[in-house]
Amino acid sequence: MTDSPVFKKVALLGLGLIGSSMAHAMRRGGLAGHVAGYTHRPETLERARAMRFADSLHGDPGPCVADADLVVLCTPVGTFGELAQQITPSLRQGAILSDVGSVKSAVIRDVGPYVPEGVHFIPAHPIAGTEQSGPEAGFAELFDGRWCILTPPPGTNTEAVETLKHFWQRIGSQVDVMDARHHDLVLAITSHLPHLIAYNIVGTADDLETVTKGEVIKYSAGGFRDFTRIAASDPTMWRDVFLNNREAVLEMLGRFEEDLNVLKRAIRWSDGEVLFNFFTRTRAIRRGVVDAGQDTAAPNFGRGKKQDQ
Amino acid sequence: MTDSPVFKKVALLGLGLIGSSMAHAMRRGGLAGHVAGYTHRPETLERARAMRFADSLHGDPGPCVADADLVVLCTPVGTFGELAQQITPSLRQGAILSDVGSVKSAVIRDVGPYVPEGVHFIPAHPIAGTEQSGPEAGFAELFDGRWCILTPPPGTNTEAVETLKHFWQRIGSQVDVMDARHHDLVLAITSHLPHLIAYNIVGTADDLETVTKGEVIKYSAGGFRDFTRIAASDPTMWRDVFLNNREAVLEMLGRFEEDLNVLKRAIRWSDGEVLFNFFTRTRAIRRGVVDAGQDTAAPNFGRGKKQDQ
Repeated sequence: MTDSPVFKKVALLGLGLIGSSMAHAMRRGGLAGHVAGYTHRPETLERARAMRFADSLHGDPGPCVADADLVVLCTPVGTFGELAQQITPSLRQGAILSDVGSVKSAVIRDVGPYVPEGVHFIPAHPIAGTEQSGPEAGFAELFDGRWCILTPPPGTNTEAVETLKHFWQRIGSQVDVMDARHHDLVLAITSHLPHLIAYNIVGTADDLETVTKGEVIKYSAGGFRDFTRIAASDPTMWRDVFLNNREAVLEMLGRFEEDLNVLKRAIRWSDGEVLFNFFTRTRAIRRGVVDAGQDTAAPNFGRGKKQDQ
Repeated sequence: MTDSPVFKKVALLGLGLIGSSMAHAMRRGGLAGHVAGYTHRPETLERARAMRFADSLHGDPGPCVADADLVVLCTPVGTFGELAQQITPSLRQGAILSDVGSVKSAVIRDVGPYVPEGVHFIPAHPIAGTEQSGPEAGFAELFDGRWCILTPPPGTNTEAVETLKHFWQRIGSQVDVMDARHHDLVLAITSHLPHLIAYNIVGTADDLETVTKGEVIKYSAGGFRDFTRIAASDPTMWRDVFLNNREAVLEMLGRFEEDLNVLKRAIRWSDGEVLFNFFTRTRAIRRGVVDAGQDTAAPNFGRGKKQDQ
């Protein structure tokens, strides 16, 4: 691994959690000669300016992407089509156009038609995040040890794919390449459905008339509090995810509901064996996640107090 | 708050995560002159002996509870009836008989009939835990800042309730007193349903034929990994919870499913406004949980890497 920059200029369109974290990570690794940032909101531009993670900031996407070797769309995926339309006249020949959206088929559908000849369009998705958003939420270590998935459309220039792969590795990630459709199916179960379920149960708790909101909050350490973290994620981003991965999410949701009916029936009929066997099987997956370095082995995620063990 | 022991002798029946954590917390706070521990498994007895958190260890519950001022059932709730039957001849007059079970109406139903005249039966539920189990999993700080709910049946000696309340406060908890039936309803939403949902989604992911187990594990940082932690909880304990809080869990599950249908419909019909409004509303609950000191404000529960913010 070398310490020289991978790109002379990188343009980040969108300066929220992911965009700002990429800026921090690029600075940490010396990955770009110049990092340009764009946001359409004057207020976010001011906040980003105070954070000093970019070399230049722009309220207009055209000048931001001019001469950039890598352009990354970091706004909610629902904005990609319009943004692509705005920037493509300014993209330089040989540039890589990428993104960090949580869905990939829809990105190819929305952005693909605007990509000029000679620009390498390689959608990407770093599987990393927190429940926080905005330019202040970013940090350089966000992508360390996490996976980044590239979904280049068939026929994409392989050298460009290798360059982007190298870039994400230097950011700290491991990189996989797969088909966009398969990505959307995998992420529907590892990310989209978990978010939907978390939002839903927090909503259910919020609506109860027999249990007060104060009680839900006080006794949340019984398990509920974990769901509130995920359900605090950015609403715009997640609205766009569900609107743009409908088929895969509904497919996974259908399976989830079938399984839930099995557990429901076991509870209704006091079938302890079904419950016990189900609850035993799921432990192995946790071990797999920890062994793969994708979560901490510390109890309760190591949150809060010191533990004498 | 005084430093003198609250009880001369405390008997813990069951030496898993909760029992062993109580032993550690009692030692830290100097709460008991003598801590006696019981487990029916010789292997667990040996492991507990190596941990040295109890003053005496017993493979027979009778001698363990003899002369104890406080007896606490810390085994899975499905064992309480039989255990109560075994120990009640050995309970001393004036003793407090309590437990740490996650359901309370069923405990009153199962244990109540065996409680001798002159023994104060006060069911309790400390809302604290981790995904780990066994005598090695315990630590003194587990209950710090968490809530413990007491559900004394009508007519319980108020002095005994005050003593038990004081004991749990000295352990580090905040204490509430409520009706057993209401407890079961509250915990159904703050603990039981979250566990059921987490077990279920991990099971769903485990069964997919289009997405491999390796993919589920690698890309779990998108949200799924949070659920695997809860779904790694003790299967026996959770089987017994669902078998013993059936009505409340099925009631909450019914509401959860209704709400899920609303979100499903919004996804199917691309109703972004419904999704956005739902996802915005749930953020307030997270703020409540953090403000109430029931979870850390650090992103991602503060897990893993240092963060430069």
